[in-house]
Parts: sequence; C-alpha cells; structure tokens
Amino acid sequence: MRLLVSNDDGVYARGIQTLANTLTEAGHDVTVVCPDKERSATGHGLTLHDPLRVQEMQHLFHPKITAAWACSGTPSDCVKLAIWALLDTPPDLVLSGINHGSNLGTDVLYSGTVSAAMEGVIEGIPGIAFSLTSYQPTDFQPAADFACKLVQQLEKDPLPELTLLNVNVPAVERDEIKGAMITRQGVRRYTDVFEKRVDPRGKIYYWLSGELLEDVEDPDIPNDVPTDVQAIRESYITITPLHYNLTSPLGLKMMKDWGALRLD
Amino acid sequence: MRLLVSNDDGVYARGIQTLANTLTEAGHDVTVVCPDKERSATGHGLTLHDPLRVQEMQHLFHPKITAAWACSGTPSDCVKLAIWALLDTPPDLVLSGINHGSNLGTDVLYSGTVSAAMEGVIEGIPGIAFSLTSYQPTDFQPAADFACKLVQQLEKDPLPELTLLNVNVPAVERDEIKGAMITRQGVRRYTDVFEKRVDPRGKIYYWLSGELLEDVEDPDIPNDVPTDVQAIRESYITITPLHYNLTSPLGLKMMKDWGALRLD
Repeated sequence: MRLLVSNDDGVYARGIQTLANTLTEAGHDVTVVCPDKERSATGHGLTLHDPLRVQEMQHLFHPKITAAWACSGTPSDCVKLAIWALLDTPPDLVLSGINHGSNLGTDVLYSGTVSAAMEGVIEGIPGIAFSLTSYQPTDFQPAADFACKLVQQLEKDPLPELTLLNVNVPAVERDEIKGAMITRQGVRRYTDVFEKRVDPRGKIYYWLSGELLEDVEDPDIPNDVPTDVQAIRESYITITPLHYNLTSPLGLKMMKDWGALRLD
Repeated sequence: MRLLVSNDDGVYARGIQTLANTLTEAGHDVTVVCPDKERSATGHGLTLHDPLRVQEMQHLFHPKITAAWACSGTPSDCVKLAIWALLDTPPDLVLSGINHGSNLGTDVLYSGTVSAAMEGVIEGIPGIAFSLTSYQPTDFQPAADFACKLVQQLEKDPLPELTLLNVNVPAVERDEIKGAMITRQGVRRYTDVFEKRVDPRGKIYYWLSGELLEDVEDPDIPNDVPTDVQAIRESYITITPLHYNLTSPLGLKMMKDWGALRLD
C-alpha cells in the first residue's frame, strides 16, 4: 500500500523512525512528511499567516523508504501539504505516530498525533493514529509490528468513509500485552492543573501541571464497549474508531423542545 | 449569571469587546480571560513547555465589568487558567467570541473560538461559541444581542452535561436575519489549498490558501435537521450542539465483525 507517515514528535523521534522503517521493511511504499521539531499538544492547528518550508530527510530512515521530508508546520500542515503539494498521487492511508505518550479519552482533542490522521480523513483518506503509553525511551517495535497487522486488516476490511482509528499500545513487555480490543473514547477530567510561581524578577507566572481526576460517562455513546481508558489499564491495545463530526445527538434531541428563538 | 468570556482573536478584538460589554450592560457578572494577541486556527492547543503570564486589561472594557485579563497562551489555556487559577468560583457559563469569521462544518476542528468553549465543557461548565460570518470590520451588535437572548434561554433550559453550542451569525443587516435554527455540523472539503512560491533567495516555500469544494454527508448523524452550512446560506443564525466525544458509532458497528486481532 502507499502509506503517508506523520507524527507530532518531529522527524528525529524514535517512534516515527521505527514505524516508517518497519512498514518499509514489510514491503509498503512509505513517504514520511512530519514536523521538523516537536509539536505536541498543538491540537488541530493550521499555519495560515506564515509560509511553510520542507527539507529532505531521507537519510534518517530505512534505505528503501520512498521519500522523507521535514516540514516547518504543524502535523495537520504536514498531511495537507503532503497530499496537495508533495505527493504525486494521494496515499491509500495516513499513519501517524508512534507517539511518545498515550492519547486516550479527552486527550484526543489536544493531540497532534490524532489530528494528523484526522487531517487525512478530512481530505478523504482513512487514517490510523498510534501512541505508546510511555514518555520514557522504550521499545517501539511491538507497536510498529501491530501497525503492520492493522494495515493488513484495513487492506481486507476498509474503514467506513470519514473514519480514523485511534490506537494506543500499552508500554509493557511484548508478551504481557493481552491482545487488541475495539473501544470507545473515554472522558477524562484533570485537577490541580496550574502551579503558580514567582520568577527571579518577582513577577507571577503559571505552569500547567495536571493530575487525572476521573472518567466521566457520556450518555451520547452506547456503553456496551469498554472505554480506551479502561482497556489500556488491563494491558490491551485499544482501537477506537473516531469521526470528525462533533454534533451531539442528545443535544439535538433536547433542543427540539426549545421552540423558536426570536431576535427581537 | 457569572460568565467567563474568551476568544481567539485576542483582547483588542472588537468582537470580544462588544460581547463582554453587552453582557455586562445586561446585568451579568462578566470576567474576560483571553489571549493577548490573535490565536486563530490554533485548534485545541495547550501550552505545556512554557510558563503562562497574565495582564490586567479592565480599562479596555465596560466600566461595570468584573475583571479582564489578557493571557500569553492559547484560548484553551485561557479558559483552563481562569477556572483553576484566576476566578474565585467557577463560572456558570463559558462564552467564546464573537469570532471575526465563521466557524462552520469541519472548521470547528481548527477553531480556537470553539475550543475555548470546549475547554469549559471539559471542565464541566457548559459553553457557547459565537462567530460572525465576516472578516470585515462590521457590526457585532446583533450577534451580541442574540448572545444575551441565548444566555437567558440557557438559564431556563440548561444544556445537557458535556454539551456546548456553536453559534454562527450571518453578517447581514439585522432585519435581514431570518431567525435562529437548530442545526447539525456540516462537513466541508477544500481544494487548491497550497500556493508554491519562490522566495527572493531562490528557495521554495508553500502558503496555505484553500477554496471550498463541497459539503459531504456523514452517515453517522441523522439528516432530519439542516447543516449549519446550509442554514447560514439562507441567512439564519445557526445553533449546533457539540460534544467532545469523537467515537464513531458507525465505525464501532462495522468493526464488530473484525473478530480478534492477534499480535503474533
């Protein structure tokens, strides 16, 4: 398959190198277009007011890789630029990651990794976001091997249009992973999120810290499948299908009774 | 009501000033915490690697406003910081805008305006994002007056938990607005999105332009309500209830037949 690989940790990250090289080794036609430096928690940002530049980076990857570029923009910029300007033909699949750290529950809204895959979906190309639940230098190979399996699966059973998969791999030894599970997005809340400090010149500043508070149930989503947050705790790989329509069916239902809102 | 007002156009924007002043004039307890400069298309970004600073800006607003701060972060940072560090008690409602330019359909994924309101919802506080469909200097008063009406409505009929409203107001004369309509998020695709140029030193760069291609149907959402994209064309104010759970029910359904995915 023709695969476009991106991430939000930047071109030098071990996660994207393991992913792109493993897919190349498996015989796929792989092109990397990813940020030239770390762009974590950029959400789904686009660069409107600055030019974008790209730089060849093929030497960082497997000798058989088709092409590799680092781009001055966000993960979304990279995927958009690849599809519209850098690639001769659109890819079959956009893969993002492997992220250093999990993207579970509400975190997907902030995640550059997920937004790279989402950008592909917006352009009509299905995608998968991969994350490993560890910030430590660690072994990305089990996650990359699973990525190969999942690509194979999607070749056989394509995703519904406008859907991407958000995959999180637990950072445990390969033989401790219990398997893969289809999940729904959990909802997480944080607490104690800012530290107030004083700088050497006596001025106040704040620094975001954050501590997990709880999972919250969302009545809009059927709860007969486990959440990603629950399943990863039990050492399963989680696969959550996401779409980019945020319309709340429950909200629509409740607002039916509002009647007409007049301006005057 | 105790209202927190933010935006992504920054503290000097006419949109936020008209919104905050109109709500203050109507007797609400209004606090502004918004970016110190324009932060459009930042998506749902959070500042993790830098400190956040705030600056009093009360002089820019109505004399009866409770407080106003400009913050060095993104719209999401502003709302998080307000709730956890700046306000004594959480607000009843987070209002964002009035944005200079529409936030319709797929655009909500990139929108700093929507993400400010979404951040409130993540923290358990309902929100409304307001946008006016014009980048030109224009009259924000009809949109601000409608915001007052909507706040009144929510006092009477609270939103379901974890829901925000995305409101777009057509930039036409007040008496040309046909009314307000409950809508669902449309799906838009763009084409011709990059211009390739050569800089004065002979190096290539790209600049994002973009042209609307089409609306796409999403099978996951019932289509017995009009999309925001459709309704605004007919000069209606659009009110779309959004949630932050991106799980695709259709994706879950289709993947039920996948069977077990093994690692080995």
